[in-house]
Amino acid sequence: MIVIMKKGSSGQEIADILDRLAQMGFTGHLSQGVERTVIGVVGQTYPDLKDTLELLPGVDEIVPISKPYKLSSREFQPADTVIEVGGVRIGGDQMVVIAGPCAVETEEQVLETARAVKRMGADILRGGAFKPSTSPYQFRGLGEDGLKILGRAREETGLPVITEVMTPRDVDLVCRYSDILQVGARNMQNFMLLDEVGKCDRPVMLKRGMAATVQEWLLSADYILSGGNRQVMLCERGIRTFETYTRNTMDVSAIPLVKRLSHLPVLGDPSHGTGKWYLVQPMAMAAVAAGADGLMIEVHPTPDAALKDGSQSLTFDNFEQLMSQIGAIAASVGRRMVGRAQVEAGR
Amino acid sequence: MIVIMKKGSSGQEIADILDRLAQMGFTGHLSQGVERTVIGVVGQTYPDLKDTLELLPGVDEIVPISKPYKLSSREFQPADTVIEVGGVRIGGDQMVVIAGPCAVETEEQVLETARAVKRMGADILRGGAFKPSTSPYQFRGLGEDGLKILGRAREETGLPVITEVMTPRDVDLVCRYSDILQVGARNMQNFMLLDEVGKCDRPVMLKRGMAATVQEWLLSADYILSGGNRQVMLCERGIRTFETYTRNTMDVSAIPLVKRLSHLPVLGDPSHGTGKWYLVQPMAMAAVAAGADGLMIEVHPTPDAALKDGSQSLTFDNFEQLMSQIGAIAASVGRRMVGRAQVEAGR
Amino acid sequence: MIVIMKKGSSGQEIADILDRLAQMGFTGHLSQGVERTVIGVVGQTYPDLKDTLELLPGVDEIVPISKPYKLSSREFQPADTVIEVGGVRIGGDQMVVIAGPCAVETEEQVLETARAVKRMGADILRGGAFKPSTSPYQFRGLGEDGLKILGRAREETGLPVITEVMTPRDVDLVCRYSDILQVGARNMQNFMLLDEVGKCDRPVMLKRGMAATVQEWLLSADYILSGGNRQVMLCERGIRTFETYTRNTMDVSAIPLVKRLSHLPVLGDPSHGTGKWYLVQPMAMAAVAAGADGLMIEVHPTPDAALKDGSQSLTFDNFEQLMSQIGAIAASVGRRMVGRAQVEAGR
Amino acid sequence: MIVIMKKGSSGQEIADILDRLAQMGFTGHLSQGVERTVIGVVGQTYPDLKDTLELLPGVDEIVPISKPYKLSSREFQPADTVIEVGGVRIGGDQMVVIAGPCAVETEEQVLETARAVKRMGADILRGGAFKPSTSPYQFRGLGEDGLKILGRAREETGLPVITEVMTPRDVDLVCRYSDILQVGARNMQNFMLLDEVGKCDRPVMLKRGMAATVQEWLLSADYILSGGNRQVMLCERGIRTFETYTRNTMDVSAIPLVKRLSHLPVLGDPSHGTGKWYLVQPMAMAAVAAGADGLMIEVHPTPDAALKDGSQSLTFDNFEQLMSQIGAIAASVGRRMVGRAQVEAGR
Repeated sequence: MIVIMKKGSSGQEIADILDRLAQMGFTGHLSQGVERTVIGVVGQTYPDLKDTLELLPGVDEIVPISKPYKLSSREFQPADTVIEVGGVRIGGDQMVVIAGPCAVETEEQVLETARAVKRMGADILRGGAFKPSTSPYQFRGLGEDGLKILGRAREETGLPVITEVMTPRDVDLVCRYSDILQVGARNMQNFMLLDEVGKCDRPVMLKRGMAATVQEWLLSADYILSGGNRQVMLCERGIRTFETYTRNTMDVSAIPLVKRLSHLPVLGDPSHGTGKWYLVQPMAMAAVAAGADGLMIEVHPTPDAALKDGSQSLTFDNFEQLMSQIGAIAASVGRRMVGRAQVEAGR
Repeated sequence: MIVIMKKGSSGQEIADILDRLAQMGFTGHLSQGVERTVIGVVGQTYPDLKDTLELLPGVDEIVPISKPYKLSSREFQPADTVIEVGGVRIGGDQMVVIAGPCAVETEEQVLETARAVKRMGADILRGGAFKPSTSPYQFRGLGEDGLKILGRAREETGLPVITEVMTPRDVDLVCRYSDILQVGARNMQNFMLLDEVGKCDRPVMLKRGMAATVQEWLLSADYILSGGNRQVMLCERGIRTFETYTRNTMDVSAIPLVKRLSHLPVLGDPSHGTGKWYLVQPMAMAAVAAGADGLMIEVHPTPDAALKDGSQSLTFDNFEQLMSQIGAIAASVGRRMVGRAQVEAGR
Repeated sequence: MIVIMKKGSSGQEIADILDRLAQMGFTGHLSQGVERTVIGVVGQTYPDLKDTLELLPGVDEIVPISKPYKLSSREFQPADTVIEVGGVRIGGDQMVVIAGPCAVETEEQVLETARAVKRMGADILRGGAFKPSTSPYQFRGLGEDGLKILGRAREETGLPVITEVMTPRDVDLVCRYSDILQVGARNMQNFMLLDEVGKCDRPVMLKRGMAATVQEWLLSADYILSGGNRQVMLCERGIRTFETYTRNTMDVSAIPLVKRLSHLPVLGDPSHGTGKWYLVQPMAMAAVAAGADGLMIEVHPTPDAALKDGSQSLTFDNFEQLMSQIGAIAASVGRRMVGRAQVEAGR
Repeated sequence: MIVIMKKGSSGQEIADILDRLAQMGFTGHLSQGVERTVIGVVGQTYPDLKDTLELLPGVDEIVPISKPYKLSSREFQPADTVIEVGGVRIGGDQMVVIAGPCAVETEEQVLETARAVKRMGADILRGGAFKPSTSPYQFRGLGEDGLKILGRAREETGLPVITEVMTPRDVDLVCRYSDILQVGARNMQNFMLLDEVGKCDRPVMLKRGMAATVQEWLLSADYILSGGNRQVMLCERGIRTFETYTRNTMDVSAIPLVKRLSHLPVLGDPSHGTGKWYLVQPMAMAAVAAGADGLMIEVHPTPDAALKDGSQSLTFDNFEQLMSQIGAIAASVGRRMVGRAQVEAGR
């Protein structure tokens, strides 16, 4: 952190700031320029220190020079984090495909979808038992019954399962049924939930909040990591902009950016990212080309009968088409699709 | 909801949609225009129905015609909701001032501030015991110890207290100490928290999420209202835009807009809304001029020593100046400032 | 500008940067901290220098410390700029009201409106002869015929006139008919137009672009000021956000912020700022309370028959109501409404 | 357009609206539902009609049902527009690469770059002679001297040239030197410039404005098309969001979306789209994977000495790497890279 003094700040003001820094356990390193005086702050700083220093007499501006996130940064850990779930490796040279319905509706719907996506080469099954819903008058998920259905689909197909947990109280319950815990976009800054999943031994997928900067996203990852859980993966699912044709604006550039800033795996979710089924395939391809470690895709036996997010779900045919075309893109960026390769080998 | 068919959609497609609507319990009302056919959907619709219908063959577009929020709407309840808390009436002709530190730090800090803001005419005391913090490495509040300090300040000054609750598990605890529960911006769509505060008998202040539309905000209010708690007030605290000089962009227009759409009281928080202490007074005045039912202002004995959000906190002197100038604005829009009037009468 | 070197940058890299700065005519002032080396750059820097320096080996980050706008800044000119137009003083203690139709449609429409707004106390008449229109299939203004109509309205009522100029070629033409030139939001970064109005002797109102930061806005003002035209006033008219109820989000906080950063007058346009006639009055009041030097209000004899922007225009009755209520707000922030006072004195 | 009446609107109000529509040349088609009455408006409507109708007594909401852009829509022209420039075909099965420096600085810089990008397989040369610059104190381009340099580069290398035109007055001049006219993001709604380039016989590349919706972008294309110039291509170059790590947020989804809504070719500009040279290659790959008809890439012999936008420019080595890797992606979406193929054939 650097303190830039106002033009004409007095020697007394400068001395006061050095004193103040010392009281707070920092060392101030003075540099008197022609126009202005600048004080470097040495020590472990934090974002709010900026606010405090900015108010001191004579101070013009405070400039943070180190990134506030630590454990998720490449500086902290240069090597990629690789998370292993039931034989699937996320964050290495695989390009992992997570597929399934937005919400768990019935056992039949989930089993049918699980079999289909497995047959087409998906690596992991998704499905929501607890559903965040903008309106209190809409379907909000089957809760534990939904978790049980996911459990049966895992048993039958052998696919690992990911599902969302919405509140600290449910973390243990969801851990009993799910291989990966998902923290949804609306909960990216539900700090008590982050604390709770940080204490469990299950991998966590942290979706980006719809108005979250990349820095805030990595700080939320730091919450989980600093709780002791080092198995964190990230998922870009679109941010909110002024554009109204699409449900969100999928920030594809966040994928290579996060790969540069952090060692954590990053996936792309073109279903929520666009909200339109006909944009899912091109945006899935874009995400893979940009370096995503995986994709999360909504698939439904009959999207037009879905209780939730039908307009962004693929039919089985559309998903098969996506899987058949994405391999070439993955290969051209040096990625293997393990589930798909097994399927093709078996044909 | 209106279903607009594609140009040239077939009679069979139209018949299928009417059938489908009937299966779902709706009545479809057909209107064949020169260019297109339009089907009105009669019955209690919900936002996701749009997604479902959009996928049916022959459908071009779905247009919702009724607002998805119900209990918070003026159509549901034409008369203003007025909430009474310890003699303060929020939502009537009073212009209520809530003031206090961002975070509870020490008993001395809170008591000193409580006495000062009471002396200057504030109606309610604010202070955070549970603090949402972007970084896990920052101050996150004193928890129950902080609540106890607020309790003592209430006892001494007689000011009702408002404080934030961040997770369902803490609702009972916070209810024991606080007159009003605050749901913060980051939790506006923490639906399980909304459910929980909807079940208690304490008034709730629901802050607008930083990327929430007004419609989503009112839907979140509907979560609380439909749980049975009818004492909900709203607070505009700035939305996230591309502007970087200010911390947020305070959407003052949301105040008169919400007053038109809803019967719930609306307050303005220029401290979070701008993030700059020197913008707090002009924006407080703007909020009152635009029709706010109240203000929420951060005040700190020594903002430059604050553990949180010092840069947006007013000193006692600045708060006194604000209070002395805001009365004329309030009067010119027909509002009484009860706390301030008592102070002035006592002088 | 400050150059922050990477941890572990070499002495050679540092020496190279100092050399490079010297070649470009700057002085580099070195400061070696414990963790990092920082180089202060002394001399007249510019925004793109950041890009250049960022690429040099060993550099971690470049931090601009002085504001890139000069002539519009309070540092350059501490005293408020006051612009006099036909006896109206903009930027001093007056609160100026500009009113009139969005577009000039007919002589009758303009004359009727001009008489009405004058009768109700407006200081300046607005009306568009050249209209920026999102669609090529809509009304785009009467051009010179429209300017002539404005000229007649000025002659009859004595009100000074403001109208928009859209392209350099039309600047001379518009100067012949208009007292103030308006540069619209879509042209805030039409740099050749800024150059051209910078060379003329007519006051210019520069509206904020709908995605422009305050800094970019002031840089655009600098274009005009550096051309030699010192009579520049600014107008906040709403920025683009994700909110869809309102046409734009009027950034009221930009008003006090710009008053702090700059000496130029700032007005508020609640008509474009909200796009809804029923929000115009509360937001006009908010703008005045926040310190605006004036208001720009769309008024139309029959808004529902307007060729452009009828939904944000006030009827004569609504405008009279606004004028009758805004005086108290203006007075409470120490502003005089000269036109309105004359009207009231004459009654 | 559909007029939705308020609940309980009177027969007289409905009759009045039908009359009003008839006066304006429209036919109103009435449909009386159980809850509400809906009137379909038949005839060629336009966006502002919405504003007008919204104000009529008894009206609740106006819903546009046809898209306001016409000539650029797929409905108007189902087949892809293909633009031929000096043997390069944009909009067909080629994936075209436009490369060169942001700004023309010296003859040597341009020639050296032109030779390099040709050698690596670029199809078209870019370079700015007129540069929009946020600050009046920065480099603004060499003007006609710059155009002459581009002319020499075209002569020597045979590459067609694209360069920006900023104002109507310069259209003829730029046409003398350039094969394609570029309308920059800041001028996407400079309607008089759109009119002017609509009258010339040179292909036009229309960049998306940084706060422009896709619909507004296509309406701006309609300006050019309706002027008679049917050779319009679009270029996505990033929109403005709250994210600050990147200069803009490149909206990759706009590429497949526009390909669906319109017959015009769409390119991607990852240099402006991200503002960071290290994100250019992954985002170029993403754009191609998502279906872009071409790429626009900034290349500079020595980015750290560039007068403009060095931080987003590739070195020759980086550009060669991009070209060597992008071919596989292009092939996997069925695109040929003609310039690159010739280079590889010649090796």
